[in-house]
Order: sequence, then structure tokens, then C-alpha cells
Amino acid sequence: MISFFCLEFPASDAKNTYSPAQKMKSKSAVIEKFGEGPVVREFDIASLKKGEVLVRIESAGVCGSDLHIFRGEDPRIKLPMIPGHEGIGRIADIKGAAVDVTGEKISEGDRIIWDRGIVCGRCVYCTVYKKPYLCENRRTYGITFSVGDEPFPNGCYSEYIKLSPETGMVRITGSISPDALVPVSCSGATSFHAVEEAGLNGMESVLIQGPGPMGMFTALFCREKEIKTIIMTGSSSSGDRIKLAREFGVTHVIYRDRLTLKEQVEAVREITGGRGTDAVFEMAGTAKAVETGQYFVGKGGTYVIAGVAVPVGKVGIEVYENLVRKNVAFKGVWVSDTSHLRKALQIIEKGGYPFEKIISRRFTLDRARDAIESVADRGVLKAVINP
Amino acid sequence: MISFFCLEFPASDAKNTYSPAQKMKSKSAVIEKFGEGPVVREFDIASLKKGEVLVRIESAGVCGSDLHIFRGEDPRIKLPMIPGHEGIGRIADIKGAAVDVTGEKISEGDRIIWDRGIVCGRCVYCTVYKKPYLCENRRTYGITFSVGDEPFPNGCYSEYIKLSPETGMVRITGSISPDALVPVSCSGATSFHAVEEAGLNGMESVLIQGPGPMGMFTALFCREKEIKTIIMTGSSSSGDRIKLAREFGVTHVIYRDRLTLKEQVEAVREITGGRGTDAVFEMAGTAKAVETGQYFVGKGGTYVIAGVAVPVGKVGIEVYENLVRKNVAFKGVWVSDTSHLRKALQIIEKGGYPFEKIISRRFTLDRARDAIESVADRGVLKAVINP
Amino acid sequence: MISFFCLEFPASDAKNTYSPAQKMKSKSAVIEKFGEGPVVREFDIASLKKGEVLVRIESAGVCGSDLHIFRGEDPRIKLPMIPGHEGIGRIADIKGAAVDVTGEKISEGDRIIWDRGIVCGRCVYCTVYKKPYLCENRRTYGITFSVGDEPFPNGCYSEYIKLSPETGMVRITGSISPDALVPVSCSGATSFHAVEEAGLNGMESVLIQGPGPMGMFTALFCREKEIKTIIMTGSSSSGDRIKLAREFGVTHVIYRDRLTLKEQVEAVREITGGRGTDAVFEMAGTAKAVETGQYFVGKGGTYVIAGVAVPVGKVGIEVYENLVRKNVAFKGVWVSDTSHLRKALQIIEKGGYPFEKIISRRFTLDRARDAIESVADRGVLKAVINP
Amino acid sequence: MISFFCLEFPASDAKNTYSPAQKMKSKSAVIEKFGEGPVVREFDIASLKKGEVLVRIESAGVCGSDLHIFRGEDPRIKLPMIPGHEGIGRIADIKGAAVDVTGEKISEGDRIIWDRGIVCGRCVYCTVYKKPYLCENRRTYGITFSVGDEPFPNGCYSEYIKLSPETGMVRITGSISPDALVPVSCSGATSFHAVEEAGLNGMESVLIQGPGPMGMFTALFCREKEIKTIIMTGSSSSGDRIKLAREFGVTHVIYRDRLTLKEQVEAVREITGGRGTDAVFEMAGTAKAVETGQYFVGKGGTYVIAGVAVPVGKVGIEVYENLVRKNVAFKGVWVSDTSHLRKALQIIEKGGYPFEKIISRRFTLDRARDAIESVADRGVLKAVINP
Repeated sequence: MISFFCLEFPASDAKNTYSPAQKMKSKSAVIEKFGEGPVVREFDIASLKKGEVLVRIESAGVCGSDLHIFRGEDPRIKLPMIPGHEGIGRIADIKGAAVDVTGEKISEGDRIIWDRGIVCGRCVYCTVYKKPYLCENRRTYGITFSVGDEPFPNGCYSEYIKLSPETGMVRITGSISPDALVPVSCSGATSFHAVEEAGLNGMESVLIQGPGPMGMFTALFCREKEIKTIIMTGSSSSGDRIKLAREFGVTHVIYRDRLTLKEQVEAVREITGGRGTDAVFEMAGTAKAVETGQYFVGKGGTYVIAGVAVPVGKVGIEVYENLVRKNVAFKGVWVSDTSHLRKALQIIEKGGYPFEKIISRRFTLDRARDAIESVADRGVLKAVINP
Repeated sequence: MISFFCLEFPASDAKNTYSPAQKMKSKSAVIEKFGEGPVVREFDIASLKKGEVLVRIESAGVCGSDLHIFRGEDPRIKLPMIPGHEGIGRIADIKGAAVDVTGEKISEGDRIIWDRGIVCGRCVYCTVYKKPYLCENRRTYGITFSVGDEPFPNGCYSEYIKLSPETGMVRITGSISPDALVPVSCSGATSFHAVEEAGLNGMESVLIQGPGPMGMFTALFCREKEIKTIIMTGSSSSGDRIKLAREFGVTHVIYRDRLTLKEQVEAVREITGGRGTDAVFEMAGTAKAVETGQYFVGKGGTYVIAGVAVPVGKVGIEVYENLVRKNVAFKGVWVSDTSHLRKALQIIEKGGYPFEKIISRRFTLDRARDAIESVADRGVLKAVINP
Repeated sequence: MISFFCLEFPASDAKNTYSPAQKMKSKSAVIEKFGEGPVVREFDIASLKKGEVLVRIESAGVCGSDLHIFRGEDPRIKLPMIPGHEGIGRIADIKGAAVDVTGEKISEGDRIIWDRGIVCGRCVYCTVYKKPYLCENRRTYGITFSVGDEPFPNGCYSEYIKLSPETGMVRITGSISPDALVPVSCSGATSFHAVEEAGLNGMESVLIQGPGPMGMFTALFCREKEIKTIIMTGSSSSGDRIKLAREFGVTHVIYRDRLTLKEQVEAVREITGGRGTDAVFEMAGTAKAVETGQYFVGKGGTYVIAGVAVPVGKVGIEVYENLVRKNVAFKGVWVSDTSHLRKALQIIEKGGYPFEKIISRRFTLDRARDAIESVADRGVLKAVINP
Repeated sequence: MISFFCLEFPASDAKNTYSPAQKMKSKSAVIEKFGEGPVVREFDIASLKKGEVLVRIESAGVCGSDLHIFRGEDPRIKLPMIPGHEGIGRIADIKGAAVDVTGEKISEGDRIIWDRGIVCGRCVYCTVYKKPYLCENRRTYGITFSVGDEPFPNGCYSEYIKLSPETGMVRITGSISPDALVPVSCSGATSFHAVEEAGLNGMESVLIQGPGPMGMFTALFCREKEIKTIIMTGSSSSGDRIKLAREFGVTHVIYRDRLTLKEQVEAVREITGGRGTDAVFEMAGTAKAVETGQYFVGKGGTYVIAGVAVPVGKVGIEVYENLVRKNVAFKGVWVSDTSHLRKALQIIEKGGYPFEKIISRRFTLDRARDAIESVADRGVLKAVINP
């Protein structure tokens, strides 16, 4: 034993124990027809292959895209399927020795989170461009899998999910609850990706459009990157969210329904010493947001568009004034990869932010329908299912 | 003397000699009223201050923006003024010891080219962001100076120009003629800036919109960065330019007036194995080009917009399809700095490209009006004035 | 007046007033002979030229290099000279309108800090490489100036300093005291530069060698970049410093005098899951530190060497094992530029760290000798002079 | 059919045909005892699994490390094994549809080259750091496999090699012969990696130590990145290599055995205008080279150490003078990944360099011993085996 003085070591994590039965079963919520159900079914779980990990889901996040899926608006879906791409749980069974992405051994009882996308590691995007989030063969738990595709179960609205060995898993320690942490696997990782694309070498100021979960994550990541001025734009009807945003690092708020665009632009100029912000983050998902956001970016800055998740038609951009004359970049952000998940988690596990407050509703598995429909309810910032 | 074996040393450059008179005079073309003249006037040149460099202009490039200036469309202009921001010449006089940006001594008789912009080195863009092309206090020879402002003369449509010590100068050796090299100071440097913004780590393919001088430079810089597939789009009416483009590295041509947009997009997909190009360069300067160009960019790629030099109104962008879903960046490019000039020159001085062919018209100083108006003549790729 | 709701605006800063006399005088500490004095002399201050700024020094930092200067060990010094390159003060007089590097107006009474180096903005390092800290013509207040060189006074061991217009100045607001903030202009900015060179994309772990001011700054910058594991190595005799380091973000300490090198390496491996750290920062300034530090760097990591400020001879590096086999970079760090100062300040002004505790001794101007000699006293972490 | 005018399309490639027998066999050279043989054995090839590719080797490169392997100096080796990690051949059989890294379909008869390393795509180096060349689980054909390990055969000194689906393969078109192209898979890709690590934003000058295959590749990659001044150091006894280097882009040669170190440094300074080079590439593999190379790097430059492939002990580095004072980086380079292979190939396939001249000896499979031992013969620049 080496005798070095160590100020802090992570406290050992209490683990629940599971005894994997000979024949495991899982109750899962299944969409069998668009706009109906989902129906809870019980499935047998095939025995694990080498490297596969069976997880007992503790918390499944309900994401805006789950509503699109439920309504049949997402062309990637083949029914029947188990929705849910955000999940956290404890390892119930594991085949062979396994390590998480940091190389740490993981075993039964460990709590893990994972990259919702599985990438091929062989296409030009994975190998030459090193942007696995653009992988030609990316598969996503809870989105691109149908009932019966292996690994199975393959969505998070389920008691169990089986993860293939290629999945990027990260062991979680620390005291943040699964409900509070589960949005990191989608909104959190994508927001981190957005902040990474912004560059933010200048460290001066940013503006975030939209006080939803992605807006909150973006605010805190910017705060943690030492951005001094963090402006958020939102509607004055989203009052509680705006208050919460303040706890995530927002320093100034502009109510977009109380000011004309010209006044908003002038407000931003006033706050930023006449320069506009180093980055603007579109986290609202509307054409209107993009129409507006282009005017807030300062010279040499970046407009990161990450909230638009479905086609919104054409948006008119003032190419000379807002791109060329200011040497500005507009960057679209598509999903995230394991690196973003890992880094987002690194920041979040440090604590200091009221993640619990993001979760405003909790549902059981048999109320999946209500959970999905709560996405359209502006009173709900984020819902989770506890299967 | 050290005896090392040296395969090649640059041949010493034959220098003309000038004997700076006690009282130097310069004939310069002056715009006194928008849309009239320019009139050739003779001015006294004040004696040099420390670090100033007087240059006998050999070649002044005629740029598209000179026509805007002449017509009174550029809000930065204060009359009377000497136009011409592209120049090459030999040092006629110099006050004190001087070095070029690489630290090499420059002296009377040396041929030099220089950064057309003078930056302050103190504002946030110069110091914190390290993007001097965005300098708050950037002044440009032949654009932002009036007659009488020191240094004077301060435009290139002139026998002499006086350069302030802050000017980024580069000594030119090698055999390319001043006429052929002079566009480097504006189109060449800006095109290099554009290629730098594109990243081009993937090294696969690019598409260039517009077979003008910037298109040619961009093609050659991409070629020299080992891009395998260089597609150019242009009108079939610009036949000779297209042929010339081939000599600058273009491998495929798409005639935009012979194909529908859908067909053009399909052609690009076919050429690039279904992926679209790693970068698209807008070097045409029209709203129409941007409307079209957005569809050619492949996943993870960059659309560099550098040709749009005056307001063109709003252009409709398919935000989801062309930015977000493909994780694409749109980047506006504004002018260039000394680093771009130096690097562009480094590539061009190597030779191997038919720069002489870019220059299709030469004018004397008293025909400045014809030179300026030749910009609107599609038969003229690039004109120069030899004062 | 625009009615936007603003959560926070910086409180207006109380300003002292100065009435610049017709004939300003300054008492300054002057080194006239190496190893003697310094002697306090009173000088007339010439009236300001355009853009110059006269500052009433509130706090001057005493840096390790001041001792080298005093002893005549620094070849750049020409006597007589006023030492002191770290300073903070309030503007006593200013010629014309002036702005700080962020473009904010600065005026009499404002508290400022400034880049100790003045760069030329024209050499290849300033323009082409965009690394002004390597400027061929860099001049440094309190180091490269002699008595009588303009601007004058030009060192910080002085009641007043006159800053040339090219100086990168930053206005300070907020409540941190000048004494606590003054080390930012040298140790803080250089440490920020060091952390920037490290890259730290992995966000996992770092090791810092040396619990001096630079070690403290580096710890806090790493902490603020969300590095989870921050190990510091130091001697067990520097007990109080180690305790203080903990308040600056250090999570683990390894006492280098209690463990063999092999044990230290094993301790690092144990803390970092067998991988070594993403970055090691040499902030101790000795050959011994470099000999040791090379073994702590993990695969793909960076060893940043920033503490070595004088020749220490050759250090044996295991090239295959510690550089090639691990694809590691060793990076030397030389001084800093305005961008580093600005960004370091941005982080520090946020507060939350016990900067006051770094300052362990305060001296008056006439005790400059004692101040300088306190550098060699291990009991003093950092001393300042209040002229 | 779309009617776009296409200046150039790659000519269709003539393909040989193979008819995979029911029971394939391969003759392969096997090291059964260190320092003996290798013995040619005939093996059955198991039928392919999904995604596997069987290649008929046309050319296998003989690399310096093959000699280390043969002598038993490489700790990774488990006997018996088939050496050879550089290979090119035509696809003899393929299970299912397959694409190369660019997404292009590959089929029987296509000529391919491949990344010699297979990476896991899951460890922290693959996912978080995105440096797959550091993969914790990297396996290398011809090095880490034994006889019998699947895929089999698994070395290039063999009629056939079987590639696992995870292998990064690139289809080769064009007219360069397999013998001339085969070093790209190791020396070429690693040299490209080295040049990438160097950054080379300055575009001014480089120095390459060692006129071996890696030196040649590095010269041409620098030439193709438009570096103006490419200095090579070598012994005057390697006369023919030096001549060849000139054809790969070298502009100046310094004979290290004819000048003292001081004279060499002065020569470099003279060639580079007093600044030293932007990058130095160590491609000689000796401690002596590193001892020397550190003095040639200019301010802000990079010393890339890529040739040292086995432990060479400690090398004395002047830390202050050669790292800190000049803000220099020393970077070790370890192997390469698929991205480097693809990009290196992109440059090389363009042609224009005398690759055929690199190959100075060709051997048949039964003369593998002579091939391996030719590595130690300075008269042989590069040998290949044609099985």
C-alpha cells in the first residue's frame, strides 16, 4: 500500500443487488399503432451474448421527439416499437468483463448512463472525419429499433433494456438522482455539443433562445466556461422557467413578446458594449427563433442552431449583414456522441445546479401516454417515466 | 563562411534603382465627384517620417468594389479620393531601416506587395480574438482615405503610394509579373481566408460557385491542399473562364443554366459518392448563388460565403435540412489580414499556374475610367492599371 | 429608454478623483547599481502625448524575476531602471479619448490593469503566426526600459507609470482588492496561457508541480474548466501552501519528498484509473521538476513547462517511453499576451477564490529592497508594494 | 441520365478475377523461433464470416520493425506468427456487401490497402479523445496476432490475408504499382500523422532528419502543404538517398557528418532568415538525432519525433533554451489511424513523385529471411515481398 496523502477520494457507492433469473422478463411500453397506446407488454429477454449489458431502468426521460414518434411523424420508425432514448439504470446482468468508456470496470449493481446512439466505427464519418454523430449507420435506442430486433428490449420505456457491447456507457457515482440526471443523455449531451461548436474563445457573452431543458443546459455549460454575460430570450408567459434559468447561470433576460426585434437587438448591443454576443444558441426549435437570432451575433461570432429538430421551411437570412460583413458562422448541430455525453456528465456531476427542478412530472410505465402528451404542455419543463 | 551543401538558394533579384528627388511628385487618379472622372492630378509628396515607405506603383488591380466606389455606392468613401486597394511596386524611398513581415530587410529597389488594410493592434478583435481583419479601426488604402490624409498618396491608381509603418509588407522575389501577382493582395488573400475558414480536414471534395478571379484562386488553393474533386458551377456563357478554371485545378464543371437545381444537386451527389461536398465556396456574389449553394454541402461540411460584397437582401435557407440535419456550418468571410496575404503569396510564388491569363486588360493611369468600367464587362476577367 | 428586464447589471464603481497638476512628479524606486538600493528618486513626468495614460499605482507585484534583475542576472537590463512589471492603479490623467481592449471607454479615476508587454503588431510573430507573446520587438514595463526612456516612468515600483497607447489595458470593476488582483498581470496571465496550451479536451485529470502563485492560478483555471481530478505535487515542508491549494481546486496532493519517483508515478496511476493525467503543469521552475514530471503524463496528454524562467541545463528525457509511445506533447510556455490577460481576468473577477490569501507580505516603496529579497523566503507566497 | 459536362472521371480500373475455391489455402511465411526461418507453411483458410474480406496479397512491405520482431526484440509477439503489417492486394472473396471507408462499394477483384491497426471504437481514446491510434485494444496485422488467431491468415508475408469487418479499407484506383504504394500503409500514414501534429500554420520552413522512407514521405507532404523551404539532414554517405530526397521536395541539404552541430544550427539560421524552422521532423530513429534536432526549431515551432520506434534511453534537452524561451512544442508520434491512411493516400494517388524509386529490392515469399535482413543494409531504401 502506497502512503500518499489524498485529500479526496470518491466515497464508495452503495449498490443494490439483482439476481438475474434463468428466464428474465421485462414489461415494456409498446407503440403498436401510431396515435394509440402505448400498450404495456411483457417480453422474455434472450440470454446475453458476450459484452452485452442488461440494465434495470430507473428513469426514462420523455423527449419532445417521443411525441413526434407517437404521432407517426418520424420517418425512421417501424412499428411495433418501444420508445424512450433517454435512460439511466443499474446493471442487472452482464456477460463477461466489461468496462465503461473511461476504462473503469463496471459490474452488476452499478448505475450507468449510455450514449443513445450506436455507431459503426467504420464509415467515413466515424474514421476520417472523426464525427461519429454523423455515422452513416447510427442506430438509436428507442427510435430506430423495432420489437424483436436485437438487442432487445431496446427502448427505455421499459423495465429492462439490453445494451450491445458497442454502446458507450458511463458509470455514474455521486448523489444526483436518476430522474434529475437522465436528460443529460439527450438534451445535455446535445447542448454540450452545441457549446463545443460555438468555440467561445472570446469568453465574453452569449445569448440563448428558449428556456427549455436545452436552454438550461446551455446556460450552465456557458457559465462553467466562464462566460460573463449570459442573456436568455423567452416569452414572458414562461415565468417560472425564466426564474429557474437564473439558477442555471443566466445573467440577463429579454422578453421577446414585450420588445420589438429592433428593441431586442438594441438591448443586446447595450448589454454587450455595442458588439453583439460571441455566440447565440437557438434552443427554441422554431423558424421564428432563427429569423430573430441572426441579428444578435457579434462580429466573428457563431450562431449555433440546435433546437430545430423537424423541418420548419425556409428562413430568410440577411447574408451580407449577418454572415459576411461580420465574418460570422451559422452552425447546425445534429445530436451528440459519446464524447459529448462524457464531458457533459463531467460538468454536471460536479453539482451546484438545481437539476431536480428541471423534472416537473413523474409517470409510471402504464401512464406512458400521459407522459408523452405532457410534452405539449408548457407547464411541464421535463417529464420522466419510472418503470 | 560555413561550407554546407545547398541544393537551391533563391537567385538574387535584379533591382532597378530610383533616386528619390528632394521634392517628389506623384500623378494620381482622383475621384472628385461620384460617377465622373477620375481626374489625373499631380501632388507633392511630403518627406517621409520614420518607418514610412514610398512605393513606385508598377501595377494596380481593378476590383469590383472600385466600381461601387466610383458610383458612390460605398458609404465609407469621402471625396476627393484616390481609388485602388490592390498594388505592387518597387520601393522608391524608405525612412530608416525597415523589414517586411518575415523580418527580412527591405530596401530601395525591392519589389513589394502589402496588406491593403492597416489595423490598430489594440482593439478586442486584434488582441483578444486575434482576428485583425475585424479590427474596429481598420483603414484601407484606396478606400477609407481621402486626398490629403496622411500617409499620402494613399491609393494605388497613382504613380506613388506612401505606406505607413504599420502596413504589412512582403518582399516579392521570383518571376511572376506584377500584373499577374497584383490580385493576390485582395482576391487572393480573401480566397485564402475563405479556404482557411473551410477547414477541409476531410480532403475529399469541394464545389466553387463562380469562375471569377476569386473562384480561380480558391480552386488553386484547394488543389494545393490536395482536394481530389473540385467542382465549379458557372454559366455556359462564361466559356473561356471555365476553360481557364481547369488550369487552376477544377476537375468537374456544372453549368447552372443547363440543369435544374434538382439536377445540379443530383450531379454533385453522383460525383461525390452520394455525400455532397466537404465545402462549397460562394464566389459569385449573388443571392441566387446562396439560394443554390446551400444544397451542395455534405454532412459535416462548410458553406463558405465570400463573394457577397454588398447587401443582397434576405435569402431563404432550409434550416433543418441544410444546417441542422447535416451538422453543417455556413461561414461568412470578410476581407483578409496580413497572415492570409503572406500565405496566399507563399503558394502562388511557387508557380505552376497561368496567372498571366487572369489579366485580360491593361490600362494607363489616364484611362482609369475605362479600367473601372471594364469590371462590368463579362469579357474581362481582371483588369490592371500600369501608372 | 428600452424597457427590458435585466437580472443583473454590474454595480457602478466608486471612483477616487485625481486632479492632474500642471507639473506632475513621481517618486520611483530605481536600481542604479546591481545588488544595491533600489533608491527612491523623484522625477518630473513629461506631459502626455495623444493616447498615453498616466496611472497612479495602487499595487505593484513582486515577482521572482525582480530578484534576478536586482542581482544583475537578467541580460535584458540597462541601468538605471525602475523595476516592477506587475501593476494595478487608477487613471490619473489621459490624453484624448481612450478605450480599453474590450472597447469600453476608460477615463480618469478608472482602475485598470494592463499587459506588461508592448508588442509591435508588425513582425511575423504578431501578424502571420498570431502569437504576439513571441513578438520580435516586445518591450516590457519594469524590465526592458531604462530611466529616461519614454514612456516614463516605466516601471511599477513607482507612484506613477505612464502607459503608451499600444498597451493592452483592461478596466477592472468588482470588489477584489488591487493587491489580490495584481499577480494576474504576470503569473495569472502566464498560467492561463499554459492552460490554453494544454488543450484539455479530455476534461479528466491534471497534475500541477509546485504550490506557488502560478500553481494556484493553474489549479483554479483547471477547476473552472471542469477538470475533475487536480493533483498537486509539492514538498511536505510547504504545508500552508498545500492547504491553500485545496481552496484553489486541488483534489489530491502528492508529497514529493515522502515518496520515491516510482511511488509517485504509481500514485498518479491509481488516482487516474491507470491512465496518467491529461496534462501535467510544471510550475516549479527546476530541472528536477521536469525530470520527474515527464512520467506523470498519460497517453495523448501534454506536459506544459511554464515555470522554468532561467537556464537550468539539460534534463534527460525518455524520448521513446514518455513522448513517442504515448503520443505526448511537451510544450514550453513563454510569457503571455493581452488575450491571456483578458481571459484570466474574466475568470478571476467572477470571484469565489481566496486571492487575498496569496498575498502574504505588503511593503512601502522605500522598502523595495526587502520586498525583492522576500522572494527568496519560502514563507512568503507573494509580496506586493503599495507605493 | 443527367447531362452535366464532366471534365474528368477516373478511368475504370481493369480487374483480375479470382474464383474462390470451396477450400482455400494460403502459403504464408511463419516465424516459429526467433532468429530462425521464417518457414513457409500452407494453411487452410476457414470460410468467411459476415463482413470479412479475403485478400490476395500483391505486395508486402518490409519494415524496420520486422527485423525487431524477427530477432525477438518486440515484447508484443507470440510465436508462431506471420509477420508483415504493410500490404496491398486484390479482394479474392468477400462475405456480404462491403464498403470501404469512403462508403464506396468494394467487391471481388478490387485492389485495396487497409489500416494495419484494428481499433475497438469503445475505449476512452477511441470515443472521448478521438485518437483511435491510442486505442487500448488496438490489434495489428502482422504484429499482435499468432497463427490460429482469427481472422487468419493475419500477416502480409502470405499469399492471402483475411481482414475482419472492423478493418479500415480503402479502394485503390490509379496507376501507381502495389510495390510503390505499399509503404503508405505504415511509413506514409505515420508520416502524415507527423505532419498533421506539426500544425504548420506558418507555412515557412521545415527540417527533416533522416533520408529514409519516412523522411521521403514527410518531404512530399510538406511540399504539398506548400512549405517553401524543406531542409534535410543526413549523412554524406547516403548520397543516393539525398538525391532522391530532392525529387520528393527537399530544397536544402545539410550533411551532419561534415559540420559541427554549431555550424549546422548556423546554417539553418542562415537559410531561414535567422528564425529556425517552423517544424523539425525526427525521422532517423536515434538518440543522437533528438539531441541535435532540438536546436533547429524556431520560436513557436514544433519538434515532431516520429522515428524513434524503440527505447533509446534518456536524451538531454535544454528545457529553457529549446522549449520555454521559444514557446516550442516537442511532440511524439505513435503509429497512425484510418484517417491518416486515407489522407496520405489522397495525396499520393495524385502522383508526381517517384515512388517506384523508393523500392530498391523485391523478394519472393521463400526469401523472407533475406528481405527482413535487408533492413539493416543501408544500400536498401525499402524492400518488398511479392508472395
